[in-house]
Amino acid sequence: MASSGNLRVLGVDPGLTRCGVGVVDVARNRSASLVHVGVVRTEPSMPIEQRLAAIAAGLRAVLDEHRPDVVAVERVFAQNNRSTVMGTAQASGIALLLAGERGLAAATHTPSEVKAAVTGYGSADKLQVQTMVARVLRLDALPQPADAADALALALCHAWRGGLTGTGSASGSGSGSGSGSGTLTPAQRAWADAERVTRR
Amino acid sequence: MASSGNLRVLGVDPGLTRCGVGVVDVARNRSASLVHVGVVRTEPSMPIEQRLAAIAAGLRAVLDEHRPDVVAVERVFAQNNRSTVMGTAQASGIALLLAGERGLAAATHTPSEVKAAVTGYGSADKLQVQTMVARVLRLDALPQPADAADALALALCHAWRGGLTGTGSASGSGSGSGSGSGTLTPAQRAWADAERVTRR
Repeated sequence: MASSGNLRVLGVDPGLTRCGVGVVDVARNRSASLVHVGVVRTEPSMPIEQRLAAIAAGLRAVLDEHRPDVVAVERVFAQNNRSTVMGTAQASGIALLLAGERGLAAATHTPSEVKAAVTGYGSADKLQVQTMVARVLRLDALPQPADAADALALALCHAWRGGLTGTGSASGSGSGSGSGSGTLTPAQRAWADAERVTRR
Repeated sequence: MASSGNLRVLGVDPGLTRCGVGVVDVARNRSASLVHVGVVRTEPSMPIEQRLAAIAAGLRAVLDEHRPDVVAVERVFAQNNRSTVMGTAQASGIALLLAGERGLAAATHTPSEVKAAVTGYGSADKLQVQTMVARVLRLDALPQPADAADALALALCHAWRGGLTGTGSASGSGSGSGSGSGTLTPAQRAWADAERVTRR
């Protein structure tokens, strides 16, 4: 659990072969710090049901150790006609399921929403995203591989777009504008209160 | 668990709003009997993470009560450009995950494979599938709704296409030809042995 006043976000860049996971703490002044970054990998030769179980085990370990307040998952589109899109969708479903089973709010963000939030530019390339993530989190090196950087970018995007205050950014998940303050964590309520004060 | 010599198959027709579940016992002579049929429903107004958690809870209840030997899930294609396809893929991932977490083999079959296996005709309509499922399982009425009939058809398809013997039908899951006899359940081994005898 994040220290009081911070919001701890787990970002998940879903995938069967490489599932990026990143945990950040974001303060009320929107500054952020790295808590954890990694990639859950599974072998393409494994049966799909064992791959999904391995991804769930990897995500559960991160949830247990770092206890995020909210989970942000990259939104997957059917239009991506890559052969991997169904596996990616299944992995995203696992991440959302684990959030739901723990009573955590979850949200999905599109790749262009994430790029725009982190770099100011919705068509930014991977290097630009990695560079900005490293700068924001004051890392000595670019986060590697790209899946890990994307997971961190997702987590930052979620915090900065105000998913915490229950307004606007939880596209497709219903945990944004649909969830009243009754479902907010203490940290989320603190943020929401701070935002209300700022808006006066 | 199925009685000795029978194979008990859980078929899952994945979906967020209605997830069809059907459990059948299939004997060595390929006759089949109904064990359980139902539909796990979730409300579209619920957040996605809570919908997936409710589907997992519903599927776990069926797994706990009926203890199938194997899980068969309808294969989802990205080409289906319906707005629901990503949710369907996520629900299918949940079903496969639960199989993997219990050490059960899982397999996916396409809708046309299921229709062909049950009716002899890959383009059969829903009524034909329901009719054949009712006839095979000696039901007094057509299984309702169609999702429930599809789940039963999937389970029958899996047993009849020889998924039990580890040959050929576990498309996309790797649990078919890729899994040696070491991963078979006792019932599956019994079937595999029977098949080998028959082929001599």
